[in-house]
Order: sequence, then C-alpha cells, then structure tokens
Amino acid sequence: MQIRTDLAMESRNDFGCMPGVTTRSRTQGMMEETVVTIQTEDAARLLDKPCGQYITLYHRDLIHAEAEDRLQLARALADAIRGMVPPEGDLLVVGLGNRHITADALGSHVIDSLLITRHMKDITSDELLNRLRGVCAVAPGVLGITGMETAEMVHGIVEHVHPAAVIAIDALAARESSRICTTIQVTDTGIRPGSGVGNHRLGLTQDTLGVPVIAVGVPMVVYAAVIARDALTMMLSDIGMPQQEHAQAIDSLIGKVVQDGLGDMVVTPREVDEMVGKVARIIADGLNLALQPRLSEQEIFLLSHDSV
Amino acid sequence: MQIRTDLAMESRNDFGCMPGVTTRSRTQGMMEETVVTIQTEDAARLLDKPCGQYITLYHRDLIHAEAEDRLQLARALADAIRGMVPPEGDLLVVGLGNRHITADALGSHVIDSLLITRHMKDITSDELLNRLRGVCAVAPGVLGITGMETAEMVHGIVEHVHPAAVIAIDALAARESSRICTTIQVTDTGIRPGSGVGNHRLGLTQDTLGVPVIAVGVPMVVYAAVIARDALTMMLSDIGMPQQEHAQAIDSLIGKVVQDGLGDMVVTPREVDEMVGKVARIIADGLNLALQPRLSEQEIFLLSHDSV
Amino acid sequence: MQIRTDLAMESRNDFGCMPGVTTRSRTQGMMEETVVTIQTEDAARLLDKPCGQYITLYHRDLIHAEAEDRLQLARALADAIRGMVPPEGDLLVVGLGNRHITADALGSHVIDSLLITRHMKDITSDELLNRLRGVCAVAPGVLGITGMETAEMVHGIVEHVHPAAVIAIDALAARESSRICTTIQVTDTGIRPGSGVGNHRLGLTQDTLGVPVIAVGVPMVVYAAVIARDALTMMLSDIGMPQQEHAQAIDSLIGKVVQDGLGDMVVTPREVDEMVGKVARIIADGLNLALQPRLSEQEIFLLSHDSV
Amino acid sequence: MQIRTDLAMESRNDFGCMPGVTTRSRTQGMMEETVVTIQTEDAARLLDKPCGQYITLYHRDLIHAEAEDRLQLARALADAIRGMVPPEGDLLVVGLGNRHITADALGSHVIDSLLITRHMKDITSDELLNRLRGVCAVAPGVLGITGMETAEMVHGIVEHVHPAAVIAIDALAARESSRICTTIQVTDTGIRPGSGVGNHRLGLTQDTLGVPVIAVGVPMVVYAAVIARDALTMMLSDIGMPQQEHAQAIDSLIGKVVQDGLGDMVVTPREVDEMVGKVARIIADGLNLALQPRLSEQEIFLLSHDSV
Repeated sequence: MQIRTDLAMESRNDFGCMPGVTTRSRTQGMMEETVVTIQTEDAARLLDKPCGQYITLYHRDLIHAEAEDRLQLARALADAIRGMVPPEGDLLVVGLGNRHITADALGSHVIDSLLITRHMKDITSDELLNRLRGVCAVAPGVLGITGMETAEMVHGIVEHVHPAAVIAIDALAARESSRICTTIQVTDTGIRPGSGVGNHRLGLTQDTLGVPVIAVGVPMVVYAAVIARDALTMMLSDIGMPQQEHAQAIDSLIGKVVQDGLGDMVVTPREVDEMVGKVARIIADGLNLALQPRLSEQEIFLLSHDSV
Repeated sequence: MQIRTDLAMESRNDFGCMPGVTTRSRTQGMMEETVVTIQTEDAARLLDKPCGQYITLYHRDLIHAEAEDRLQLARALADAIRGMVPPEGDLLVVGLGNRHITADALGSHVIDSLLITRHMKDITSDELLNRLRGVCAVAPGVLGITGMETAEMVHGIVEHVHPAAVIAIDALAARESSRICTTIQVTDTGIRPGSGVGNHRLGLTQDTLGVPVIAVGVPMVVYAAVIARDALTMMLSDIGMPQQEHAQAIDSLIGKVVQDGLGDMVVTPREVDEMVGKVARIIADGLNLALQPRLSEQEIFLLSHDSV
Repeated sequence: MQIRTDLAMESRNDFGCMPGVTTRSRTQGMMEETVVTIQTEDAARLLDKPCGQYITLYHRDLIHAEAEDRLQLARALADAIRGMVPPEGDLLVVGLGNRHITADALGSHVIDSLLITRHMKDITSDELLNRLRGVCAVAPGVLGITGMETAEMVHGIVEHVHPAAVIAIDALAARESSRICTTIQVTDTGIRPGSGVGNHRLGLTQDTLGVPVIAVGVPMVVYAAVIARDALTMMLSDIGMPQQEHAQAIDSLIGKVVQDGLGDMVVTPREVDEMVGKVARIIADGLNLALQPRLSEQEIFLLSHDSV
Repeated sequence: MQIRTDLAMESRNDFGCMPGVTTRSRTQGMMEETVVTIQTEDAARLLDKPCGQYITLYHRDLIHAEAEDRLQLARALADAIRGMVPPEGDLLVVGLGNRHITADALGSHVIDSLLITRHMKDITSDELLNRLRGVCAVAPGVLGITGMETAEMVHGIVEHVHPAAVIAIDALAARESSRICTTIQVTDTGIRPGSGVGNHRLGLTQDTLGVPVIAVGVPMVVYAAVIARDALTMMLSDIGMPQQEHAQAIDSLIGKVVQDGLGDMVVTPREVDEMVGKVARIIADGLNLALQPRLSEQEIFLLSHDSV
C-alpha cells in the first residue's frame, strides 16, 4: 500500500536518482528550494506525476518565520511563478477547496488577499492603475457544496473570460508530517485528478482547459496511516529487522489500520487555523509580486493591504 | 430625484391603479401576499420594471416570527417558486452579493443551507436520493472581489451545466425602511442591471442566459436619503403645505443631502447580521420545498439539517 | 509512557474491574450510556481521576445521527445534568477553549446556542419568562489569548454573580480515535489541571470556586502517538509476539515518535469544523432542557431557536 | 429632542466657547487632533459628559488612508494613551460590544490583534520578553449574550488580576454621519452608563472599578433621526425660515419619525464590515505602542504580526 502524496519531491525520494528526472537544490538563509523536473513518460509513470517542473520552497518553521523570511519566501515564490506564466494577457486565479473546512480552505484564503485588477484597469485614467496586469479570481467551492465539478465551472468561466493562463491554489496531502505548512509546491502541470485534500474528481490541466495551468499548493494534512508506518518502520530497524523483508507485513498492517477508519483521519497540527492564514498571506504576496511586474513592491503592498 | 427601489410593489404605489398592471393581495395569519403583474411595455416603462410577475410575501416582524409563521412563509415562498420553475431538469441556484458585507451576504447564506443534490442523484442506489431533483448552486462573488462580471461567470457555468432554469438570490434596496427583512419578492423577470444592494452592472435574464431566470430578493437597505424625504414630507403636511407644491423644493434638498455623502450611506438595523441569517434560513427552506417535489417536508428538513 | 486521556471510561479500561470503582452500562437504540463512579482515593490515584461520577453518552455516528437520535442524546444529557445541579439558584455556564482553533472551540459554540435568561427574568412580566431559571454564560478564552488563567477570571465572575453552580464545557483529548465527536462525558468533579485540548494550567473545581462544578466534554482530538501505538500493538500480536514482553520496546519507540514532533500533532477528522457545530447544538439543547425545568420542550426550542 | 452622541467634541459644539471647558486643536498632515477638557461640574452637566480629558483624532478618509497615515494615527493614539496610563503595573484591556453585530464588534476585533504579554513575562528568560509590560485582555460580550452586566464581570476580573488600569474599547454613536470610522476618541473618564452602540446599562469608571479607566472609542453608527434632522434644518434655512422659530416643530417631527421605528435604525456605511477591521488594526497598533514602552516599533510589529 503506497501512501498518497501530492509532493513530487516526496515521490522522487522513493527512488534514488533515476533516468528522466533531474533534481537541483539550493539553500538561501532559512529557505531550501528544490526543483524536480520530470522529463520522460517512463519517469512520470514511476513517480505517478505528469511530466513537467515541480519547484518546492521549504522553511522549517514557516508560520513563525520573521517578516524578512516571509518576504524572502514570497519573492522566491514570485520568481517561480514568473517563469511559468505567459508574459501578456489576463490571468485567472482559482482558489480550490472547501472554505468551511479549515484544512481545505487555503485556496479561498489566498483569493481573499489577492490584488484583483481585471475590472479596474479599463475603467480608470489613474497612472498607477494603468500599469496593472488584469487579474481575476474565483473560489468555486467543492462538489459537495455546489453539486458541480470544479472543472466544469472553471472551464465555463475560462471560455468567457479568456485568460492567458489559470493559476490554481490548493491544499495538499503529504507523506511526512514535517511538510505540513512548511512547504510550498509550484508546478506547471496543473491539478491532477485525485489530488488535494479534497480529492478532486477531475483535473485542471492545459488539456482540459485549453490554457496553461500553474498549480500552487501547500501540504495541510498527512494521513494517519503515515504515523503508523513511521512508527512501524522505526521499530523494525530498532529491533534489527531489515525493513525490506517485512515490507509486506507492514503493508498488510497499515491496511488493517486504515480499514479501522484511520483512512479518513488526517493528522494536522491543532493550530491549523492559524497556519492557513499565515501561509495564505505569503502566497498572496508572492502572487501579487509575480502577476504585477509593472508595479513596485511598495505599490503592491499598499494596494493589497487596502483590499478586503 | 426618484429614490431607487427594487420592489415592484413600491414602484406600483407611485401610481394609483393604472392600465397594464394588475394587483391582487391576500392576508393569511400574519402574512400578506401581493401579486403585481406588469402586462404592457407602457406600464413597464412607467414602473421602470420589466413585464412579468412580482410576488411579495410580507410579515411585519419576520425575524422574530415563531416557528409556525416561519414555516408558513417558507411554504408560501415554495408555492410562488413552483409556479415559475420548469417541471423537469436540473436547477442552478445563484447566490449573488458580497459575503464579506453583511447587508449583501443574503445570497451566499441561502446557498449554505440549500439542499445540493445534482452530484448525488446519479451516484446512488438509495431510494430516497433517487427521488431528488438535481440542484446545484454557486456564490460567484462580486466584481470588486473577482474582477469578473457575475453575468460572465454564470453564463459560462450555465453553458456547461445546462440547467432548466436559474434561480438568483439577492439582497435588495427598498424605499421604505419598514420593508427591511420583512418582505420577500419573487419574480420571473430575473435580475436587472443596476438592481440589488451591490448594484449589478449587468443583468441575469432569459435573454442573456438562454434559460428562465427566477429572482428571489429581500430588502436589506434603504438609502439614507429615504429618511430625509420621509421627514420632509411629514413636515410639509404637518405645517399644512400641500406636498405637490413643494415636491421640487424637496427634491433639490434631497439632492443636497445626497451630495453631502448620504448617497453612499444606507440605513440598516444594527441587528442586520442576525436578520440575514434568519431570512436566509426561511428562503433556503422555501427553495428546498419547491425544488424537491418528490420529497416529503420531513425528509427535506432531515436532509437539509445535515448539510454544513 | 501512558498516553493521556480525559475520559474516565478509558482510564477505567486499563484495569479490569477494581475495588472502589463501580460501572454500569445500558444501551438504548443507537445510544450507549455508561456510568463510572470512583469511590475511593486509591481508585482515584490509580485512574488518575478524582472521586465522583462520570457519565458517558456514546453514539457510533453522532454527527450524522437523525433528528430523533440527536433529540434522544440531548434528553439523556439533560437527565445526567439534572442529577448534578442544585435545584434552585442561578447557573453560570463557562465555555472553555479557544474559539480561534476549531478543535478547541466546542465551548464557545455551545454558549452561542444557549438560552441566556438571568437578565430577562427580573425585568419582565411575561408569564413564560417568569418560569425561566436564571442562566448566564461566558466564554473567557484561553491563557494565550487573554493573558489570564481561565480560573482567575471565572473565580472573579463567580464572586460577583453568585451562581448556585458552574457548568463548564470543554473539548477533550481521548485515547481511541473512535471516540472523537461520538462521546459526551458529564462529570460532577469539575475540570482538572492539565485536562482538555488546551491543557488547562489550573482546574475549575468546588475547592477553587466554592460552588459545585459540573463538566461536560467531548473528545475532539487524539494524540498522533495513539495511532503509532495502535499500529505497533497490532503488529506484535500479528507476528505472534505477546504484547507484555515488548511493552517497554513499544514505549521507548512511542517516546521516539513523540520526540520527533508528533507530540504536538493531534489526529482529527478533516471534517472537525462541521462536527463541532453539530455536537455543540446537541449539548446546547441538552443544557437548555436540563436548566429550564419549568419550560416545555417546545417552549425551549422556540426560544432557543430565536437566539443569535 | 437632543440626539445622543458619545463624542465630547460634538456635545461641545452645541455651545460656543463656555466657561469650564478648554479646547485646543492642531492639524498634522491629514490628521486633526482636538483636545477637549471639561473642568467644572457645571460644564459637565451642560455637556452631559463627566469632567476629564477627551482627545479626538480625525482623518477624513481613515479607512482608505495609506500606510504612513495609518502609522501616524497609531502613533498619535499611542501618545494620547501614554499620557493617561500609570507608568507601572499590569494593564487590562476590555473589548466591549457584541462580536456578532458588525457595528458593535470593534472591541473584540481590537483584542484579537493585541499583544498579550501578562502570561509570558514571568515564564521566560528571553531578553526581549523580559522587557514586556504585562498586558491582559478580555472581550466579555454583552448582557443579551451573557446574561451578566459587563461591569459585574470586569469588576470581578479586576479584583483577581489587580491591573494598574483598565483600558476599554467600544463602538460609539455619533451625531454627524461624517464621523463614522473617521474619528477615534480617547478619554480618561471611562465608560458611562447609556453610552456606546450597545447602550451599556452600567458604566466602567474609577469609582466602580477602583482603578483608572481609559476609554478608546470610534463612532460606528448615527441614528436615522440624525439624517431627518439634517434634512429638515437644511430645508428651513433654504426656504428662509430661521431655525430657532421652528426648532419645536422639528423636534416634534423627529419625535414622530423616531416613533415610526427609526429610533432603532442606525445609519451605517454598507462597508462597515471592512471599516471595523481597518480601524481595529490601527487601534491595536496604537495600544501596542503605548503599552510596551521598552520595545521598539519594529519589535512590536514583529511580535503582534505573529499573534492570531
């Protein structure tokens, strides 16, 4: 039983270095940046992730990071996104997830702090506003709340709004609890079916929407089974049993545990409510910096600080 | 200066009985029901409302009404809607307005208590669920928050979801403060440009969406200018000046008052937060009753009570 | 390493039947009621719980329970509380916990739906209101938010309000994940130091406050270490190792796991947001029934439904 | 009929300059500061405000003010408060009002962004934390929600926490709509009975609590009657009737209008939800600056930015 993860970085770690995958990392102050590029279909199959680029930004204690570190993360995020969005045209930001479930509300929180400009730029003579790039945003909600697939709704909106690209924000599931609210993943491969805390039934990709789809995600949960597996693995090495030999025993056990209802259970810090707000603010700052190249940082913070 | 109102009933009162307009009223317990039908283009022009039917349900103290009275209102609302929606096909409910502004949040509150079924009915063998009519819902947010016209978004969604009709919920502006949170208007004419607390720039009508649009609205605000006008009118009759003669004086005055910043100011009871929740619940119950003809009242309350 | 639990029922299960502790259970429809009574100081020491009565109400799927089952639970809760509160005098309900952390917000949610009457009963001639028992309530917040020990604040309030008893509502930590949002514990022993999701530094008891303290709690979290232990124990029996022999190995392992940061991690269903609201409503109904003996059920639901 | 105002500045304007009252004003950039000092009991009676100092800070468009202007206001607020609080000892900040009613939620919003330190300063060896002054805070809620007079609760807490002074934050009613969310009043006279949006039944003063009480307030509402009066007064001067002669006619009219239900109606900008958040942040910054004299501005913003 392979425990699900939405982080390409974690999938990659299952295999040492492999053909068709390149990885490079750099550390800058408290921040670690890793770029995983999946180049071949064989590698994509093995890692169970589509071909493309996956950039992860990691800060061991992101939500308690000081102002400068948070700004550094926002800037690094902006650089990653800038490299993926088309240079011209309006952009549609989609906040995925369920705003009524804290661990799944990242997307709608980001939208709330985003600089929305598509409706301003035409109707103003203001010099500053004329330098705005058109950005619009929507938090469509989840199937259980709307009765509609997110993909249906976004597709319909894209056909009327004609953005140059879609940027989707989502809460992810990871395999290591240390990833929760400490890692931001940016990818040019969009959102795949079955990913995310909410387990999207359909994906959001260039194939389905007809425009490039950049996905920004942060792990908010790990499955309870993860904890079980970690503990079992520890024990085996502790009592000197090589893990390989007992891999099967472990899997069947995890199977049991999951069966007993842990499958639905997610491990999340009790402070997830606070964490979501902090990370959402960093992502919103990063997006505002990336999507408004003709504004200065100061202009952006002044404008976005005045939004609801 | 004619002060704006979204209630056909109030527009109608400006004129006594007139050709092309029929009105009938009935009182039932604490509830007054009035049906205004605008039949000719001339009448439509005069009343500044499109041809069609406008049903208003009024309860003097709606938000303190006891359980039975609230149920009576929900049933009357259900009857009104049943008469307007097509008998078959999925239905899309649109919660208009800005969830971040209490007086404009009616739409999204209603959505939150609505029975969403479109995604269930196909994927279940449950006898009860098989009797569900497909209902989906979206609270698209407002231009200032999304950067997109609500009409653009809804149009795009309609083209993908193909509902038999759209039901739009909106917070309205009225001309008499006694209307706030006491009156529910249902009309088969949809949402017109410039209507609502949020002043929609574009309308939502059968012409623009290609399917029938039923609008359900509740006055949440009156303009501050309304209070001024009421006071002035009172005074004139009080000091024995016939209103007609001084109509112009009043208007120029109101003009001044508005100019001095009252225009943006809305009069709303301090308890609007509580009111919105109460009225939203009644409307949600009414919609659930109207849109699920094959379920009993009890089944509906059990199901909807379990929704988030 | 003994993993913490706030449920007397779970502590009791660590030992078979023991002197100084009586236990009786009954099943009624979907609901199981268990009454644990700790009678001797020796037993209290062993179970690490003070002498007194602990009543637990359990419903396997409490938050999806149908209306009748929820009502049954509310009534059983009311019976349990009625047996513990003094017959006369005002009552102070204290909602413990942090309203900003979903898993810790039970207390303030219950307060929000409670029938508050202390200020009404004196100032009205209404026949119905004259039958009210005086109830007041406060959600004092947590040390990290207020800078004050909850016990300090409640003590100060008690000295001015002079209630006949205090009823404290709190979110609990349990040892079995199956207990989360399925079990309601009522005890006449008050709140002990170190208990609750928020780990109260000081207790709320008759000794500290000078009036009887009844505590109502619902498990909202289990420690991640719990999952690890469950998995390890399963494995041992699975590969035929008697648990006793390896108890120490397990404990040291759990120690490691906890050390590696799981200690702070709590396992909670992703839907905890929805769960809290549902359970809070049941508890509020139960309290309203118990604390207003001179009102009929119908009167209570009408009144409480009208509160914010 | 004298329309109520909580602003000493507005009461003062009813009379020209008068014995026993001194007033001085200064303008700094966009900000106007006015200091009204009531020195004699006669003046106090006439102005219907207790003897003491009333400092008002005014910014025509406070909630759209740029970052620098908001900082300037926070600093001016800090100066005003510094002059009123005792130099040593813990401080208790009380957020008055009803968090469920937007126009009355200022107090609890301020508490949410306040730097709470009383519980930290003892339990840390951290050099920075050791420079903290002890601040604790509570948002006790309103009579209708708690069943207890706010004054009872605060008094009880004060007796246990022994603060050197109490700082109460409250939403006010003003007489000119232009005052809403543009004016911050600071006074050393505490909270008087009948003041505030919520109309406190009892006051919070040095007499009742035994320690100095500083009150910080912002007008959030004006009575609908205010609009009526403005319009009538305008009209009279417009049609050349000297106001004095018709003062009585006006008053009786306002009486009528109020009678017709406007009394409860408050005029508030539709955007009050957004406004409250903005002003609350400025006040919290001002308080943090005033109450932490041994911290630098930068240290304060870093710490408070990390609070929930």
